[in-house]
Amino acid sequence: MSDFFIPKLAVVGVGLIGGSFALALKEAGLVGEVVGIGRGRANLETALKKGVVDAFTHSLAEGVAGADVVFLATPVQTLAKVAAEVIPHMKPGSVLTDGGSVKAEVICAIEPLLREDIQFVPGHPVAGTEQSGAAAAFASLYRGRRCILTPTSRTDGQALELIKSLWQAAGSEVVVMTPEKHDRVLAGISHLPHMVAYALVDAVANCGGENENILNYSAGGFRDFTRIASSDPTMWRDIALSNRVALLEVLETFEHSLAEVKRDICQGNGEALYDFFLRSKQRRDAIV
Amino acid sequence: MSDFFIPKLAVVGVGLIGGSFALALKEAGLVGEVVGIGRGRANLETALKKGVVDAFTHSLAEGVAGADVVFLATPVQTLAKVAAEVIPHMKPGSVLTDGGSVKAEVICAIEPLLREDIQFVPGHPVAGTEQSGAAAAFASLYRGRRCILTPTSRTDGQALELIKSLWQAAGSEVVVMTPEKHDRVLAGISHLPHMVAYALVDAVANCGGENENILNYSAGGFRDFTRIASSDPTMWRDIALSNRVALLEVLETFEHSLAEVKRDICQGNGEALYDFFLRSKQRRDAIV
Ligand SMILES: NC(=O)c1ccc[n+]([C@@H]2O[C@H](COP(=O)([O-])OP(=O)(O)OC[C@H]3O[C@@H](n4cnc5c(N)ncnc54)[C@H](OP(=O)(O)O)[C@@H]3O)[C@@H](O)[C@H]2O)c1
Ligand SMILES: NC(=O)c1ccc[n+]([C@@H]2O[C@H](COP(=O)([O-])OP(=O)(O)OC[C@H]3O[C@@H](n4cnc5c(N)ncnc54)[C@H](OP(=O)(O)O)[C@@H]3O)[C@@H](O)[C@H]2O)c1
Repeated sequence: MSDFFIPKLAVVGVGLIGGSFALALKEAGLVGEVVGIGRGRANLETALKKGVVDAFTHSLAEGVAGADVVFLATPVQTLAKVAAEVIPHMKPGSVLTDGGSVKAEVICAIEPLLREDIQFVPGHPVAGTEQSGAAAAFASLYRGRRCILTPTSRTDGQALELIKSLWQAAGSEVVVMTPEKHDRVLAGISHLPHMVAYALVDAVANCGGENENILNYSAGGFRDFTRIASSDPTMWRDIALSNRVALLEVLETFEHSLAEVKRDICQGNGEALYDFFLRSKQRRDAIV
Repeated sequence: MSDFFIPKLAVVGVGLIGGSFALALKEAGLVGEVVGIGRGRANLETALKKGVVDAFTHSLAEGVAGADVVFLATPVQTLAKVAAEVIPHMKPGSVLTDGGSVKAEVICAIEPLLREDIQFVPGHPVAGTEQSGAAAAFASLYRGRRCILTPTSRTDGQALELIKSLWQAAGSEVVVMTPEKHDRVLAGISHLPHMVAYALVDAVANCGGENENILNYSAGGFRDFTRIASSDPTMWRDIALSNRVALLEVLETFEHSLAEVKRDICQGNGEALYDFFLRSKQRRDAIV
């Protein structure tokens, strides 16, 4: 599948995304040593014990020294800061890449920091669970999923091919698009649904009277529908802030769709409601 | 579990809910003959072949004649019309019950139609899938789920006990509450999420450009979150219309929650977003 071998991989942020990337590449036999870099000790020790990393350090400079590929997998709003710290210590000719859920803003912040002799390939594996940390990482997370790479005019073709091969080796189908398109698409299929899920749980919790928690009655349907509201608040705060423009646009589109439903309910317009529900059902069924 | 035996059960609307009720009671050995009543022939033939019913007819009068229990499981807005047609033909002392997803409006419409010698027990099994029709029915649908019964001052205690026993025999935990409370609770944990899911699919389909269908990029997360948008449009039109008042109220609460998120994104208020997401996550996690 791949002719590449990475003697040393550095992963900054050994959580679900960074940890699973390391595990997948290890399983594919494509990496030599994996060094994990993080702040907390417990998580890194878990990573070591699980075989996600072969060594760890709290020092970004130490961790990336001599690494052929550096993978950033910390929350979106921290990526540029981390990049600024690691770039001066990276080996000439090495490749920096990331797994952040928002691309345009992150790229804008990182590209000016790059050195001539370092390549940057921005990426986003469209895979995940509501779990986080190294304990949640597993080698097959990316199997059968898409990974979106968003090269810019500055991105080196060979570096792009390398990172593409790694994600393919991890089992993903690689899709290439512009950062702007990525952010627009993800705002719709992922960021908006998360905002909606968080708001829905909030609303249902609030709409009971003083001493009545309506959530207590919720059955499987509600639990399933709101599963993504169990996602990590830090990660989603960062995504909401970093993809603000695209997210506000789809949020407004959603408000209009919901207002249409509300108006039809208000007016008792059964025909319009039926048509609306049927159209959504058909669109939803067409995805599967 | 139950001392009751129902020599003849009539089910009007042999779909997912009516069909599964019949199958569950058959499996529990609590019914003699089950007669299915419906409009379409194909669905009733499926029901007969699957052993959901022992006989079927298109005539409401014929079907309910001699039945000890008549279970109505047609869309919510049709329940009163069906009740008006079956009540004159029901056996003295028999019990009418239903599985409709909205209670107050249905009860208001049915109670004035009742005869002195017929009891009515309004109910709603909180169980279901996005599938419909007799083909989708299965005996264990109600196992481990809740069934809400909403008696009124007119409801006979013995009839209530009978219907309660039947749902318990089907494997459900029976909860008793007022019709109004039922409608308020269900508006929050079920009806609102369905409206939101239909609107979300609509919005995401609309927010791509002319020749860009963003839905094509949707992965497992979006599919899971919007599963309930594949539900039957007729059923949901009827629920939206029949539970209009309670639904509009929670819809507005939801609009406020969403507006709060939107405002915080607009203002780049990361702290407020984090707090909001964390609170929802904690509430969601507390359900499980
Ligand atoms: N989860 C998903 O569904 C998913 C999918 C695709 C992409 N992503 C993206 O992947 C990245 C990581 O997500 P994840 O789900 O793997 O999260 P995670 O499991 O919480 O892992 C993130 C790691 O980053 C480190 N970290 C957290 N805050 C940091 C900070 N301020 N500075 C430096 N390091 C920090 C943490 O380690 P220490 O505490 O030890 O520093 C943590 O182990 C995010 O950019 C996210 O948007 C997530
Ligand atoms: N699905 C759920 O998740 C769920 C959960 C709890 C309660 N409920 C409630 O249970 C009831 C039935 O839902 P379901 O999911 O079982 O639907 P379903 O599978 O579509 O079955 C409904 C049945 O009612 C009959 N019907 C449809 N329109 C009718 C009309 N205008 N007049 C007379 N009969 C009609 C249909 O048979 P014919 O076409 O042969 O007449 C159909 O088989 C609804 O009141 C619903 O709100 C549903």
